[in-house]
Amino acid sequence: MTRVAIMNAVRHTTILAGGLCLMLSASTIGHAQLFNFSHQDLIDYTAQNPFERLSDGRPRVPDEMIARARGLSAEEIWEVLEDKQFHNQYADGFRVLYPGKTMVGRAFTVQFMPERSDVDNVAVAKAKARGIPELTNQTAIDMLQPGDVLVVDLFGKKTDGTIVGDNLFYYVMKATHGGGLVVDGSVRDLDGISEIDMPAYFRSVDPTPVGNVMLTGINTPIRIGGVTVMPGDLVVGDREGVYFIPPQAVKDVLDRADEIHIHDEWTKKKFDEGKYKSSEIYGSPTDPKLRREYEEYLKKRLEEIRSQRNSH
Amino acid sequence: MTRVAIMNAVRHTTILAGGLCLMLSASTIGHAQLFNFSHQDLIDYTAQNPFERLSDGRPRVPDEMIARARGLSAEEIWEVLEDKQFHNQYADGFRVLYPGKTMVGRAFTVQFMPERSDVDNVAVAKAKARGIPELTNQTAIDMLQPGDVLVVDLFGKKTDGTIVGDNLFYYVMKATHGGGLVVDGSVRDLDGISEIDMPAYFRSVDPTPVGNVMLTGINTPIRIGGVTVMPGDLVVGDREGVYFIPPQAVKDVLDRADEIHIHDEWTKKKFDEGKYKSSEIYGSPTDPKLRREYEEYLKKRLEEIRSQRNSH
Amino acid sequence: MTRVAIMNAVRHTTILAGGLCLMLSASTIGHAQLFNFSHQDLIDYTAQNPFERLSDGRPRVPDEMIARARGLSAEEIWEVLEDKQFHNQYADGFRVLYPGKTMVGRAFTVQFMPERSDVDNVAVAKAKARGIPELTNQTAIDMLQPGDVLVVDLFGKKTDGTIVGDNLFYYVMKATHGGGLVVDGSVRDLDGISEIDMPAYFRSVDPTPVGNVMLTGINTPIRIGGVTVMPGDLVVGDREGVYFIPPQAVKDVLDRADEIHIHDEWTKKKFDEGKYKSSEIYGSPTDPKLRREYEEYLKKRLEEIRSQRNSH
Amino acid sequence: MTRVAIMNAVRHTTILAGGLCLMLSASTIGHAQLFNFSHQDLIDYTAQNPFERLSDGRPRVPDEMIARARGLSAEEIWEVLEDKQFHNQYADGFRVLYPGKTMVGRAFTVQFMPERSDVDNVAVAKAKARGIPELTNQTAIDMLQPGDVLVVDLFGKKTDGTIVGDNLFYYVMKATHGGGLVVDGSVRDLDGISEIDMPAYFRSVDPTPVGNVMLTGINTPIRIGGVTVMPGDLVVGDREGVYFIPPQAVKDVLDRADEIHIHDEWTKKKFDEGKYKSSEIYGSPTDPKLRREYEEYLKKRLEEIRSQRNSH
Amino acid sequence: MTRVAIMNAVRHTTILAGGLCLMLSASTIGHAQLFNFSHQDLIDYTAQNPFERLSDGRPRVPDEMIARARGLSAEEIWEVLEDKQFHNQYADGFRVLYPGKTMVGRAFTVQFMPERSDVDNVAVAKAKARGIPELTNQTAIDMLQPGDVLVVDLFGKKTDGTIVGDNLFYYVMKATHGGGLVVDGSVRDLDGISEIDMPAYFRSVDPTPVGNVMLTGINTPIRIGGVTVMPGDLVVGDREGVYFIPPQAVKDVLDRADEIHIHDEWTKKKFDEGKYKSSEIYGSPTDPKLRREYEEYLKKRLEEIRSQRNSH
Amino acid sequence: MTRVAIMNAVRHTTILAGGLCLMLSASTIGHAQLFNFSHQDLIDYTAQNPFERLSDGRPRVPDEMIARARGLSAEEIWEVLEDKQFHNQYADGFRVLYPGKTMVGRAFTVQFMPERSDVDNVAVAKAKARGIPELTNQTAIDMLQPGDVLVVDLFGKKTDGTIVGDNLFYYVMKATHGGGLVVDGSVRDLDGISEIDMPAYFRSVDPTPVGNVMLTGINTPIRIGGVTVMPGDLVVGDREGVYFIPPQAVKDVLDRADEIHIHDEWTKKKFDEGKYKSSEIYGSPTDPKLRREYEEYLKKRLEEIRSQRNSH
Repeated sequence: MTRVAIMNAVRHTTILAGGLCLMLSASTIGHAQLFNFSHQDLIDYTAQNPFERLSDGRPRVPDEMIARARGLSAEEIWEVLEDKQFHNQYADGFRVLYPGKTMVGRAFTVQFMPERSDVDNVAVAKAKARGIPELTNQTAIDMLQPGDVLVVDLFGKKTDGTIVGDNLFYYVMKATHGGGLVVDGSVRDLDGISEIDMPAYFRSVDPTPVGNVMLTGINTPIRIGGVTVMPGDLVVGDREGVYFIPPQAVKDVLDRADEIHIHDEWTKKKFDEGKYKSSEIYGSPTDPKLRREYEEYLKKRLEEIRSQRNSH
Repeated sequence: MTRVAIMNAVRHTTILAGGLCLMLSASTIGHAQLFNFSHQDLIDYTAQNPFERLSDGRPRVPDEMIARARGLSAEEIWEVLEDKQFHNQYADGFRVLYPGKTMVGRAFTVQFMPERSDVDNVAVAKAKARGIPELTNQTAIDMLQPGDVLVVDLFGKKTDGTIVGDNLFYYVMKATHGGGLVVDGSVRDLDGISEIDMPAYFRSVDPTPVGNVMLTGINTPIRIGGVTVMPGDLVVGDREGVYFIPPQAVKDVLDRADEIHIHDEWTKKKFDEGKYKSSEIYGSPTDPKLRREYEEYLKKRLEEIRSQRNSH
Repeated sequence: MTRVAIMNAVRHTTILAGGLCLMLSASTIGHAQLFNFSHQDLIDYTAQNPFERLSDGRPRVPDEMIARARGLSAEEIWEVLEDKQFHNQYADGFRVLYPGKTMVGRAFTVQFMPERSDVDNVAVAKAKARGIPELTNQTAIDMLQPGDVLVVDLFGKKTDGTIVGDNLFYYVMKATHGGGLVVDGSVRDLDGISEIDMPAYFRSVDPTPVGNVMLTGINTPIRIGGVTVMPGDLVVGDREGVYFIPPQAVKDVLDRADEIHIHDEWTKKKFDEGKYKSSEIYGSPTDPKLRREYEEYLKKRLEEIRSQRNSH
Repeated sequence: MTRVAIMNAVRHTTILAGGLCLMLSASTIGHAQLFNFSHQDLIDYTAQNPFERLSDGRPRVPDEMIARARGLSAEEIWEVLEDKQFHNQYADGFRVLYPGKTMVGRAFTVQFMPERSDVDNVAVAKAKARGIPELTNQTAIDMLQPGDVLVVDLFGKKTDGTIVGDNLFYYVMKATHGGGLVVDGSVRDLDGISEIDMPAYFRSVDPTPVGNVMLTGINTPIRIGGVTVMPGDLVVGDREGVYFIPPQAVKDVLDRADEIHIHDEWTKKKFDEGKYKSSEIYGSPTDPKLRREYEEYLKKRLEEIRSQRNSH
Repeated sequence: MTRVAIMNAVRHTTILAGGLCLMLSASTIGHAQLFNFSHQDLIDYTAQNPFERLSDGRPRVPDEMIARARGLSAEEIWEVLEDKQFHNQYADGFRVLYPGKTMVGRAFTVQFMPERSDVDNVAVAKAKARGIPELTNQTAIDMLQPGDVLVVDLFGKKTDGTIVGDNLFYYVMKATHGGGLVVDGSVRDLDGISEIDMPAYFRSVDPTPVGNVMLTGINTPIRIGGVTVMPGDLVVGDREGVYFIPPQAVKDVLDRADEIHIHDEWTKKKFDEGKYKSSEIYGSPTDPKLRREYEEYLKKRLEEIRSQRNSH
Repeated sequence: MTRVAIMNAVRHTTILAGGLCLMLSASTIGHAQLFNFSHQDLIDYTAQNPFERLSDGRPRVPDEMIARARGLSAEEIWEVLEDKQFHNQYADGFRVLYPGKTMVGRAFTVQFMPERSDVDNVAVAKAKARGIPELTNQTAIDMLQPGDVLVVDLFGKKTDGTIVGDNLFYYVMKATHGGGLVVDGSVRDLDGISEIDMPAYFRSVDPTPVGNVMLTGINTPIRIGGVTVMPGDLVVGDREGVYFIPPQAVKDVLDRADEIHIHDEWTKKKFDEGKYKSSEIYGSPTDPKLRREYEEYLKKRLEEIRSQRNSH
């Protein structure tokens, strides 16, 4: 992205910042924003979070679970979330920058709405009154932390809907330690972005800089496709789409995934033997003897995996 | 809509009601809602409103202007809003129930998001704590006032995205005195709705009742297509699309429309004479004598219109 | 449709007629066709049919119920079919010839597949061996009976996918006594068709005659959008889409519709009084006194409707 | 359309006018234009025209044939044009202003391309040098003659792609005596246009005036959808789409249509008798006696029609 | 795919199995199925097959021809099939798992239709009566043989339309010896599938297991896009789409391909010389001397290829 | 592409060649064509060209600039063209053959229109009269020169809209020295094309040869998506889309790109230090000291780049 371009973006992209108070202390940076979705609101609406919280109030899915989640696929997550009656946590239809590279991290949410000067001017004034000199996409980007995935609602906008070009994409990669990006909107500088090692999911690509929009939320609930995303959700992107896992479901998803991996391992081993029809083995063995064999295998492998995990 | 159906809808559609306090007094009913967009926020973000306010805090474009606005077309509005740098106040792509009937009224905004039980449960608890027993689409509909247009963000949802069937459509008609409906979503019972005299703009029609969503805003800023709609905007729908006019621009739009009507009247009269090429008359007459003729005509007709208007 | 055109159509549209034996007796005309879906198959797969059967084996929903069904809307049908676990009986996305005119009748199903000469030639030979000289769309159309709706799978084909023009549309109207047409394909001669009084649902319109297809089924199970349609289903089309009701569900749908009509009648009456919020009345009255009032009204009106119906 | 709007349009819409020389004499007005498609080119490329020519060089399908063509439907035209190996003369996918009103007239073609200032400036200079002060959509519109249909390539543009609003639509109606409009682009002021009695086919509607385009052809060959349209083609629009008939095919189309009308008349009469299966009558009667009956009917009715026509 | 998921699938996916009799003998396994498309029907409708047949009745294009077919591209097939009046044997619009890897094999066809419990229950009962305990996608998959390509009509279904996940995809790969998959529907577990070496063509990817459908055909004629696919067709998939070649055309396609390969070889060699314009060489040389040169080259190379082929 | 196929193409694809005179002299070969867009027109409409011209009249952007342009991305071009009021020079929505390989070259433009025999026959006769024996896509392809990019308007046609297969693609690669191809239409033989080292941008792929079209322009202004392309424009294709740069803007684009590359280099270096928020560095440093540092860096690097460039 060029200097002229970003100036243009700055001109068009101001923040709708009722109650914004970014500079006061470390504990409030980026915690909550616009239309008064307060620090307390964030805590209330994510009350089932079983983990610690980040300084900005978001649930903090532990690093160790983020590491384990790199082995997940969307289908494994589907099963546990269906069981828990979460039917709307999956979004697809993105262009996927690195199809073979799983994206995992904590959701840092940002919302834009179509620019409207009368609303915009109020927001700018409110922000200035709180000591924030300028309100752009970079205001949000500067708040990112290691382990975050930047999740942005730009309502599918292509022209003027480019959340980042290669420079800011590079910054996001550095700031999040390669966390990732999901944008219901576009990016620019795809040639440059394609040389930077961070997963990204976007709707389209355009040469224009972001503009004709106003920033209306940082770490508020947002909508991406058919999903309500909450700040701190565990974001998992595979070759095809993105799951947003409520923190309270993360452990069950990971534990169930261990079993599924072992089940797949055993199933393929049996298929390799070439003696069985698929329905004799899969979903579960029809022959009681085989079933017992599987159950023992499962038990043994689970123990191995766990002891291996603990030994690290 | 059937009883069973609506029960189903109730089950799936609960309200996200941080700070909701509906029953306290007439002055707060429906004024502001979820994620704490307060009465004061509503007033701050519509500070340029030159008119009185409704008890819920929304700007109250006067009835007399609503009546005059029935003569507007989207194209006339376009010119004034462009001049005022409002480039994003028009939405189209709707199915229009009555193409020949202009819709005019004050925006009463409602927002839904995809259902997510952990967030939903918190909202239900918060609402209960404030004395609101049940949270459905009807919670919002019951707050409508005469002159309102119900404007709903259901994020384009078709299945389970039907804001009303014919029964509630009838109620909305009664409550708003025929104001109207704009929904970025669907309706059901189109056969029944087609017998009720109220303008409506919707994306699709489906036999399912609304469900699998949660109500997240009443009279908050919402997005309809590429428009940020504010509560109290003057909504004008014509044969093709819908304009959302900020209250502070309404008078200029109406006054300019008077001139455009007279200009069109005169232009057609001249074309009827059959003596001129289109470019000799339109946009403005090339011949100075004709231009003078037009200017006198404009002046005379404006006076007539205004004196006629005042005499009512 | 012109003579040259139909010759062309005949050339391209031959019937895939394993087991076709049309001329033997009245009891087998049109009963079943291709790929050996036999008369017995038709009876087996519609075994729950509570009514008599047509001579071709299809369930015969009684005329009196067809008459009552003219008052149905898709939404009323939805409720009963959902209860009975029929989730896939509704198709929409059609162009509707007469939006204000309900279509009701018994499904007469026809299936086409993309032309393929090696298969086609076998079918033609098999048909000839059974005394059928020519195999075209008219072979099926000639079997229609009063009360039928012609339901055709032309796999969404526009060019060369026109099941009828105005001449054959006129014939279908005469033969079915104005029953109707649903085609997942197109029609031609829309100007002519628009002067003929029969409901029709089609995907598109094209000037070409039908061609480059082969007829592969008459009164076999077919797919229209997301619906498996069985011969003899009660077809009900409203302003927006088409329901295919299994015969065994027809009575419940009609009875439930009586209640819904009365419920809507009462609800609107109450709304007209202007004393109630929508949620006090609808889905069902919250006040026990009102609820009792409603129940008495329901009972009385049901009796009136039924006695009125019996007196005819 | 407003004055301010059209000024804007004028600013953006200039004509690419190599060789334009409008003012010299009546015989050259509007005859040919840009990129040097000369009067002689127009005559060469329409050399098969059997009729007189308009002063601008276009073939002049006689008024009497235009009147007869009002009874045509697209399907009747299809047959003759297929026979003559014209496979690409039909365009659809338009919004049709008056579905029940056939559009007939001589094609007056106009082409726009995306604005590009370096090319535009040359065109403006060339036009000025030839005495044309200003180049807008109105330059073309001012050349329309009675019996014309304005056919415009705006490459499907919606925003800024509105060839006319209600004022210019009114002028076009007056100038062409209600001929009609086909635009692969949009119109504005649909509310106003809907009160004016002229057929129109357009892709979309938008509140913006035309802009960001340059006029690059008047009465040159243009493309509308999959059709190459030549100036002077007979344009026939029905309820669904538009045919562009080369002048040399017009007579055959009209004569064949007479036969088709009689054929349809007779076919329906026979169907009304209720004695025949569709395939016994249509496409042509299978029974030799019936075929003879039809042939006599055809002969008699053709004579009636022709003598009736001649008597006018 | 997980165990829970497949159980769900089993519940929803039952087979419509009139006449199914899988277990009787090797000669009938998988030969023909539902709606009584019998073993004899399969043989009749593929009567032009010049090769042996598989035990299930399908034509058996020889392994040696399958091997040669790996060098084909869709364009080479196009020419011969056009000549033979097969205009509808190509389908595209798929996502292609391995764009650089040609898919070749014998079509094993499977058809699903939208679930409908009344029909489904009959099918289940009929199947049980014939000793088939359970009817799922695996019923069909278990019948696959080496050299098969699994071709599935799931009518474009995405959600609940996933014919396989990675476990069953692995089984199909093993059972067909890497033959391949074409599904007018979706797959799940794309991350897992991407590690398995078998070509696949699908419309979409989804995390849900297959459901809400019923199996209605195994090795019956089915439709994939605009193609009627017959069991035993030679399936050839390239980088872009899939051809379904009737067995009787296979030899001509392969022989013609030899010539085209040589023609391309010679053409490129000539272009490499840099002395000729494209039209002097291609499609065929204009200079008689060059043409002779080419014909000699063709003859020589054909002999080489054939002798080389025979020596294997 | 096969011989039979191309014969077919020849039959359908003839050139509309008013004034075509290819063989007279080197200076006129391919310079300008149909509808009389003359050599002089080409020069007039590209009068701002600051460079020499090719023998066919097109601006000749120097080879050295073509080489530098390989480092451009669309976003860098965007900035300069916006400044110069070129808002419409970018097209996307193509399939990109080699996403990682930048395409650069001089536009050689070709236009097709839907076939129409009456127009076609005139063109063929005019061409014959000038000694051109045959008019096909190869007529244009044979005129290509080193450094050209072939840019073709086939109006988005898929079936029969394939400008080249692998043989002609190979020829184009040889003739242009790997310049490239942009076609608003399709290609065939993608398997073969994927082995040839030349960038290509196309809308779709199809097995049919080009047909049912007529060639109507060579090196005339054409439209690709929303762009008016002039012969001789510098074409730059990146991973996502294609820019058509007017020759007079090329130098500014390249010089500005140098600065942007240095700016990006410095920005990333600073981000690597990990001490700054993104907004402190980008678009431009907020701290005056940093800004100075940047300016010195820019100056130094610009000098290095330029001296390096001159030394080659």
